[in-house]
Amino acid sequence: MEKGFFIVFEGPDRSGKSTQAALLKAWLEENGFDVILTREPGGTALSEQVRKILLDPNGKVSPLAELFLFSASRSQHTAEIIKPAIAAGKIVISDRFTLSTEAYQGYGRGLPLDEIQTINNIASESIQPDLTILFDIPEQEFEKRMRAEETKNGTDRFESEHLDFRSKIHKAYKDFAQRKGIKKIDASKSIDDIRKEVLRLVKEIIIK
Amino acid sequence: MEKGFFIVFEGPDRSGKSTQAALLKAWLEENGFDVILTREPGGTALSEQVRKILLDPNGKVSPLAELFLFSASRSQHTAEIIKPAIAAGKIVISDRFTLSTEAYQGYGRGLPLDEIQTINNIASESIQPDLTILFDIPEQEFEKRMRAEETKNGTDRFESEHLDFRSKIHKAYKDFAQRKGIKKIDASKSIDDIRKEVLRLVKEIIIK
Repeated sequence: MEKGFFIVFEGPDRSGKSTQAALLKAWLEENGFDVILTREPGGTALSEQVRKILLDPNGKVSPLAELFLFSASRSQHTAEIIKPAIAAGKIVISDRFTLSTEAYQGYGRGLPLDEIQTINNIASESIQPDLTILFDIPEQEFEKRMRAEETKNGTDRFESEHLDFRSKIHKAYKDFAQRKGIKKIDASKSIDDIRKEVLRLVKEIIIK
Repeated sequence: MEKGFFIVFEGPDRSGKSTQAALLKAWLEENGFDVILTREPGGTALSEQVRKILLDPNGKVSPLAELFLFSASRSQHTAEIIKPAIAAGKIVISDRFTLSTEAYQGYGRGLPLDEIQTINNIASESIQPDLTILFDIPEQEFEKRMRAEETKNGTDRFESEHLDFRSKIHKAYKDFAQRKGIKKIDASKSIDDIRKEVLRLVKEIIIK
């Protein structure tokens, strides 16, 4: 049995990641691939329990505790879902992975990036995605969305964060786009244009 | 305001730690000290939620996920309870701290000790106890207790796994007793003898 592939979709909230992940899954399955679509934080019973703690609007969760809760979720997710699926030759698509922790807990909450990277490596058992697609919201579009956000009321703890927090996340993903092996996609394009671009990038790695 | 003290009680289950922690708290309060008695995992709302996940008999929790959940609990406990109390000049007594993670997740579950120490340092914001008292069950007494358990419960697979785990924890604390700054107490002595020994050690650090 050949080893599978690990594809990660990264980017800020509402950048269209989840829609595109579902479209990619459908295309891969139509073409005979065995696909697992998963997301962080989530995918396991433990992750769902952790998610509940994190989204509890009355909960008191320090930035460090938040980092460790996400890491607990990631380590269970990696051991229980991602690694076995890759070993079984499947294509795993994960909506968020370690970069989200650098963005949200590092740039967003201000925790030291070196500590986050150390913990990310331990939690993910050092597995590396074969492809990371970053959904990038261009500067102008970002400003437009920020203004729209101002009139909107948040529902959970993350959504009620200040707009300042969103700017930090935007900055994080802008920085990540410079890293080796990360493919940036313009998330302001049409769903179909993005879908084609995603397919092009995925075909590069799965068809040899 | 003078900085307080941080005292940690460590040792295996049923070594008498909790009883002695309560006795020490009472003595300190009678002598005019402001005391916070706390325990791990616990002490905060988050810790109680984490505790629930860990104790759920139907839950699937990998050793690494367990490590991160305990670390989430510890970081919240450190930031919310321990550090503010020490800064306010109080004496904090914690029933278990970082050594328990080395014992249970390291020696017990077999996770690498260097990774645990790295994570422990991050979770505890590198605070060090002013005094760690280790409740040591002497070899002969440990053997006696193990034999009693075997007779009481029989030795089915679950039970022998349980005894094997306890031997690993026993070994862990025996190793820790060699470390600098850790004071060992013979946990097989009478409650009153242990109480006096604890007081002697505590007085050494709080009365200058």
